[in-house]
Amino acid sequence: MSKPKKVVLAYSGGLDTSIILKWLQTEYGCEVVTFTADLGQGEELEPARAKAVTLGIAPENIHIVDVREEFVRDFVFPMFRANALYEGLYLLGTSIARPLISKHLVRIAEETGADAVAHGATGKGNDQVRFELSAYALNPAIKVIAPWREWDLTSRTKLIEFAEANQIPISKDKRGEAPFSVDANLLHTSSEGKALENPGDEAPDYVYQRTVAPEDAPDTAEMLEITFEAGDAVAINGEAMSPATILTRLNEIGGRHGVGRLDLVENRFVGMKSRGIYETPGGTILLEAHRGIEQITLDAGAGHLKDSIMPRYAELIYNGFWYSPEREMLQALIDKSQEHVSGTVRVKLYKGSVRTVARWSDHSLYSEKHVTFEEDAGAYDQKDAAGFIRLNALRLKLIATRNARVAKKG
Amino acid sequence: MSKPKKVVLAYSGGLDTSIILKWLQTEYGCEVVTFTADLGQGEELEPARAKAVTLGIAPENIHIVDVREEFVRDFVFPMFRANALYEGLYLLGTSIARPLISKHLVRIAEETGADAVAHGATGKGNDQVRFELSAYALNPAIKVIAPWREWDLTSRTKLIEFAEANQIPISKDKRGEAPFSVDANLLHTSSEGKALENPGDEAPDYVYQRTVAPEDAPDTAEMLEITFEAGDAVAINGEAMSPATILTRLNEIGGRHGVGRLDLVENRFVGMKSRGIYETPGGTILLEAHRGIEQITLDAGAGHLKDSIMPRYAELIYNGFWYSPEREMLQALIDKSQEHVSGTVRVKLYKGSVRTVARWSDHSLYSEKHVTFEEDAGAYDQKDAAGFIRLNALRLKLIATRNARVAKKG
Amino acid sequence: MSKPKKVVLAYSGGLDTSIILKWLQTEYGCEVVTFTADLGQGEELEPARAKAVTLGIAPENIHIVDVREEFVRDFVFPMFRANALYEGLYLLGTSIARPLISKHLVRIAEETGADAVAHGATGKGNDQVRFELSAYALNPAIKVIAPWREWDLTSRTKLIEFAEANQIPISKDKRGEAPFSVDANLLHTSSEGKALENPGDEAPDYVYQRTVAPEDAPDTAEMLEITFEAGDAVAINGEAMSPATILTRLNEIGGRHGVGRLDLVENRFVGMKSRGIYETPGGTILLEAHRGIEQITLDAGAGHLKDSIMPRYAELIYNGFWYSPEREMLQALIDKSQEHVSGTVRVKLYKGSVRTVARWSDHSLYSEKHVTFEEDAGAYDQKDAAGFIRLNALRLKLIATRNARVAKKG
Amino acid sequence: MSKPKKVVLAYSGGLDTSIILKWLQTEYGCEVVTFTADLGQGEELEPARAKAVTLGIAPENIHIVDVREEFVRDFVFPMFRANALYEGLYLLGTSIARPLISKHLVRIAEETGADAVAHGATGKGNDQVRFELSAYALNPAIKVIAPWREWDLTSRTKLIEFAEANQIPISKDKRGEAPFSVDANLLHTSSEGKALENPGDEAPDYVYQRTVAPEDAPDTAEMLEITFEAGDAVAINGEAMSPATILTRLNEIGGRHGVGRLDLVENRFVGMKSRGIYETPGGTILLEAHRGIEQITLDAGAGHLKDSIMPRYAELIYNGFWYSPEREMLQALIDKSQEHVSGTVRVKLYKGSVRTVARWSDHSLYSEKHVTFEEDAGAYDQKDAAGFIRLNALRLKLIATRNARVAKKG
Repeated sequence: MSKPKKVVLAYSGGLDTSIILKWLQTEYGCEVVTFTADLGQGEELEPARAKAVTLGIAPENIHIVDVREEFVRDFVFPMFRANALYEGLYLLGTSIARPLISKHLVRIAEETGADAVAHGATGKGNDQVRFELSAYALNPAIKVIAPWREWDLTSRTKLIEFAEANQIPISKDKRGEAPFSVDANLLHTSSEGKALENPGDEAPDYVYQRTVAPEDAPDTAEMLEITFEAGDAVAINGEAMSPATILTRLNEIGGRHGVGRLDLVENRFVGMKSRGIYETPGGTILLEAHRGIEQITLDAGAGHLKDSIMPRYAELIYNGFWYSPEREMLQALIDKSQEHVSGTVRVKLYKGSVRTVARWSDHSLYSEKHVTFEEDAGAYDQKDAAGFIRLNALRLKLIATRNARVAKKG
Repeated sequence: MSKPKKVVLAYSGGLDTSIILKWLQTEYGCEVVTFTADLGQGEELEPARAKAVTLGIAPENIHIVDVREEFVRDFVFPMFRANALYEGLYLLGTSIARPLISKHLVRIAEETGADAVAHGATGKGNDQVRFELSAYALNPAIKVIAPWREWDLTSRTKLIEFAEANQIPISKDKRGEAPFSVDANLLHTSSEGKALENPGDEAPDYVYQRTVAPEDAPDTAEMLEITFEAGDAVAINGEAMSPATILTRLNEIGGRHGVGRLDLVENRFVGMKSRGIYETPGGTILLEAHRGIEQITLDAGAGHLKDSIMPRYAELIYNGFWYSPEREMLQALIDKSQEHVSGTVRVKLYKGSVRTVARWSDHSLYSEKHVTFEEDAGAYDQKDAAGFIRLNALRLKLIATRNARVAKKG
Repeated sequence: MSKPKKVVLAYSGGLDTSIILKWLQTEYGCEVVTFTADLGQGEELEPARAKAVTLGIAPENIHIVDVREEFVRDFVFPMFRANALYEGLYLLGTSIARPLISKHLVRIAEETGADAVAHGATGKGNDQVRFELSAYALNPAIKVIAPWREWDLTSRTKLIEFAEANQIPISKDKRGEAPFSVDANLLHTSSEGKALENPGDEAPDYVYQRTVAPEDAPDTAEMLEITFEAGDAVAINGEAMSPATILTRLNEIGGRHGVGRLDLVENRFVGMKSRGIYETPGGTILLEAHRGIEQITLDAGAGHLKDSIMPRYAELIYNGFWYSPEREMLQALIDKSQEHVSGTVRVKLYKGSVRTVARWSDHSLYSEKHVTFEEDAGAYDQKDAAGFIRLNALRLKLIATRNARVAKKG
Repeated sequence: MSKPKKVVLAYSGGLDTSIILKWLQTEYGCEVVTFTADLGQGEELEPARAKAVTLGIAPENIHIVDVREEFVRDFVFPMFRANALYEGLYLLGTSIARPLISKHLVRIAEETGADAVAHGATGKGNDQVRFELSAYALNPAIKVIAPWREWDLTSRTKLIEFAEANQIPISKDKRGEAPFSVDANLLHTSSEGKALENPGDEAPDYVYQRTVAPEDAPDTAEMLEITFEAGDAVAINGEAMSPATILTRLNEIGGRHGVGRLDLVENRFVGMKSRGIYETPGGTILLEAHRGIEQITLDAGAGHLKDSIMPRYAELIYNGFWYSPEREMLQALIDKSQEHVSGTVRVKLYKGSVRTVARWSDHSLYSEKHVTFEEDAGAYDQKDAAGFIRLNALRLKLIATRNARVAKKG
């Protein structure tokens, strides 16, 4: 790979990406463009601008973008149509944000004539894969720089020394090591590493940042009604809202009730297991409610097909293949199923849990007329079941007959 | 189908199966053999014997069997190795008991020279399918009688009249209609029908029989350590127990904490949607803990394969195909994966929820040496990730290049 | 089911459906509307009109429609995008025609105010299922009459007697039993039953109607170039043609070379195995060529996903679920993959076989620059493979290490 | 990776692996052990011994092993139980041999105290992945040396120079470049690269080494009866033979009839497409015959499950994951299905094609009694089909009713 001339850096304004910024300037002597996204991580972004200026970035090279609506509308909601869970439990909060960031990095690179993008993910994790596969899929000629895989700043001490040597301001609390590593966006907060590395040790309470402990949640349950149209949430308690507003609101409510905590050991794409603590309050409510509305509006054949491809869909997102033809093919399948997934679900939040308790819809496939224990006025002829069962049994009877015949002979 | 001469009836001792018993005698003039199983449903079985005698069954034709250990060991545990959930949520508590009952009905038929078996499931539900597919698979020559699909006792009034006309004792509380229908065994209690038929109405509190409301659960969380060997639970808090004892104990503890309630609209095999209220306290704990131990002992490739076939496995059990070659093939696959699923999981029970908080195992695949944020002494070379990503990206780059080329031409 | 008043019958003009026509008139006393489709079965349709008139059908109640283009464009081609093979070998020639026929039966019923449709399929086969599922899916209120399941004309003698008693003309060759049963359309000819019922006996030569024996095919191979656009064949040897014309032409060429014969024992949806002799000359060429063009234009991820869902897609069509949400979802997935499946394939036909020998496309993903054994000018860095392999191996090494550790302890 | 001290090399005796042998000695100064396997590639192995001696290998370090029976019994036959085809067409002839070679490399390394293994696969292909994943899975501590990824002998000229400089004898025909690269074993011969690199050019006739052109095959068809027991071929024309003998015999017969040629563009695991010419005469017959016997002995549910996982199984083998838990899990599933796959198939070989024409078995599930068009004496009640269809249709009717209701409202 030839040396990059101009690099778009995914820049948070924090110490690590500031070091990367400086390192790119000194190592490659290249112009740096910064991209800072408001993904709903709950941090002020303007300090990132000031800091970038301090580090010598030209004002026109500083890009700060509020992508919250895009994030929820084009990434989170499509994924939730699939009820996606990685390894049965993980709501993919970090995974789903990476392709969005790469999309903007590549866009800005093309707009500013940059030939490379850079990110602050390490060489052990999944994020490097997600950033880079996305970038390459969107622009096969782009260069990607992953300083953590290249440089020799392999210890905290060396990083601090580099920062000091390069006049990068270090806030006091950043001098020591953080007890664990955090990623946050509108969908979730994840914490991993260091203090959390032994999966046999319970995670300490101070890890949780976005949800109260269930023990500290209100003693009274809260009911919530979520309305869906074609698979996407569109209103809470009857009030229509934009995608990002809905997720923000659900986060507040869920967080208050201690909903959405997960302590997980998962399998990284790069071949190792890692332990993460995830908080996904709004997403956890959304998944429960989406399942609730699908229960009455989605046909069995459609639902079972969706269930059967879901693990593969989730794995693709986890592994960084958002911009792959197979993810897009699965999305087409999923989206096709959601046309009638419209209606309202009532969920109950209480002390860390969320449960569907009622659902109704103009698009319902539930037929009380058919299912009733009462007289059904001919809606369903129970005698049909006899033929249904006998034909379903036929092959099983043929097997049993064959097996007995063979056993007798043998 | 020619007339049966001797029928083995799945007999609970309740009003409905007593009516069936009498109806078989009068309708077919055939000898009736009763089979009453202790599946952990929490009812005395001796009254069933007395009642059968009253209804004219010869003592040697009354079979009462405690099948609890067999149920958990040979049916529940194999199913839990798969983390089976029907439609994402249902733990299959009723489904998994039916093949066991049919197995004994067929066994007793063969031992007593009966040519038929009979059950009390209606023509609208899944249980008729499960009973009958199992029976036919085990004995292709057996006749199956499903009185609810045959007789004209189509209203409560007619049933009561038949009972009175045939000296079947009716306890007072059975004169009126039950507000809903219940099935129970060691794995769960399900309630459905009548008062629960509108999925837009919340289920009333009195439906729940086995779990306290989360609001009424203790204010203090309880920790539980569950030990697994080769995929099956073998001890609680270090105390080794038999399969049925473990499930019984987990039911008590889970029920006390309000764990395992589910309000679900599901798709029946016979083509309609139905709403059920399920209580599976012990099973819910078991699923969570089994996933917890798999997290550190099961390889990613093995786990993802299991996840991908799970929906099909669950559907087979739900639909009554326990004794099918495809269920047995999937079981072989699942069992093969469980050899090293051994170790201990700590779960926390609190106000309706159960969560894994720690897990450890001699069989662990978790490698702190590899995953650590600290210096890893060469366990993992971060530069490997560059090649890994570039080769994974290659096809995506070729696609992007092709698409751009075609777009330019077009 | 209440008595039908007006019935649309799938009418071939042959003896069997003429008997059905008469039987509907006499049994139900209802008005009969006939629908005769030109599906490319290679028979004149006007005689069917004359015969219907003879049997008392009003001219305005006789519907004869050429559906060949619709058949290939809307049914055959979408299916071939999936490379669909039932049980690894069967090209679904009969299965794919049934939903089209039901679509027209239901359409005509709605246009003529008929309340029922009728077909001539027996109660043992798949076609009854396909006709009826399609009809119910398109019009849930329609009645379906399947005379073979209802009447008592259970032997050839009784049928002939009924025909004679009702002045239905019987051609001489129909007095005796046909040696096997035939279905034909533009995609294939199938033969089954009677003389073919023992799968241990070779099918006699006279069964084959559409293909010469490979031994009788020309001694010289023929090359054919088939051009695809977005997954569908659009030209042969550079000559653009309509869908039905392409399939007709491929049938002629393939038939002449003895291509597309299949002797199969398959599993019917109703639970039994049956043996069929299929001739699908054009379809066999089309499948081979479609695979050939996908080889260079379809990405690995897309192709492997398609392959993995194909058996389910084929099973749905075989079982009659063309008009199901899950078939439509899978179609959305498949169609999404075909956008760039454009280009030309050269196949070689010789003595019963067809093989791809060359393929080229403006949409090709094949990169000689990458794959070459020659110097590749940096297109691909072989050292990347080392990292790729090491990370793919990591979990396997962790497993081996764990297993060795456990074995030593045990 | 520290320097290896003793290396086991997969040594063919050819020029390339002789150069590797010498390069290992000079580059690493390490002791070299050679492993030469008789996989049925059709070459004398003793010359490899002589050449190794010439190159300074101690006699006790030269390992020549006939692994043909092991290859067919433990690798080829298990794979054929699955009817495995990669990307719909490829019989995996090269893929399945690699794990066997790695198994012996690792075994010999452990027996001789070697700390490394080496192979002659390039950095662009799949074989490097297969060799190395297998080696690491069997011995996580082993070092793997892949000279083609390391050295600077990047042109034919440099290789020849190195050979000359190191007294490696060069046969005349090896001085120039081979027109393509060949791999052969008992299952197949593959040819790729160079002259074959343009998939739009037909492969020249001289590429084919193991099969005659169909045009040159006998003008008379040959019938062959292959007997299976539990999924594996055990006899040809009634003569029992060992696994390797069966495959050898089928290769002779198939090759003579021009059976098993394939011109394929496939997707390599490393991300690029490549074109290969494969000849698999015996394997092609075996696949056809195995499918033929499964048609009558394997249940629909079992067969459809096998079909649905086959693409994944084939992909695992292609990608080098033979020794992975997921391949072993799938093998357990497949093997479970084969218990009754016993019986005899007659296939017809003619001018490049092989087709099943008859099959019979004591384990047959085919029931003429059920399928017959004749009077079936009550084996099957056609009226059962009505109920079967109505219940299968129920959900489709509910969908149609819902859709109409919504459309009217909208």
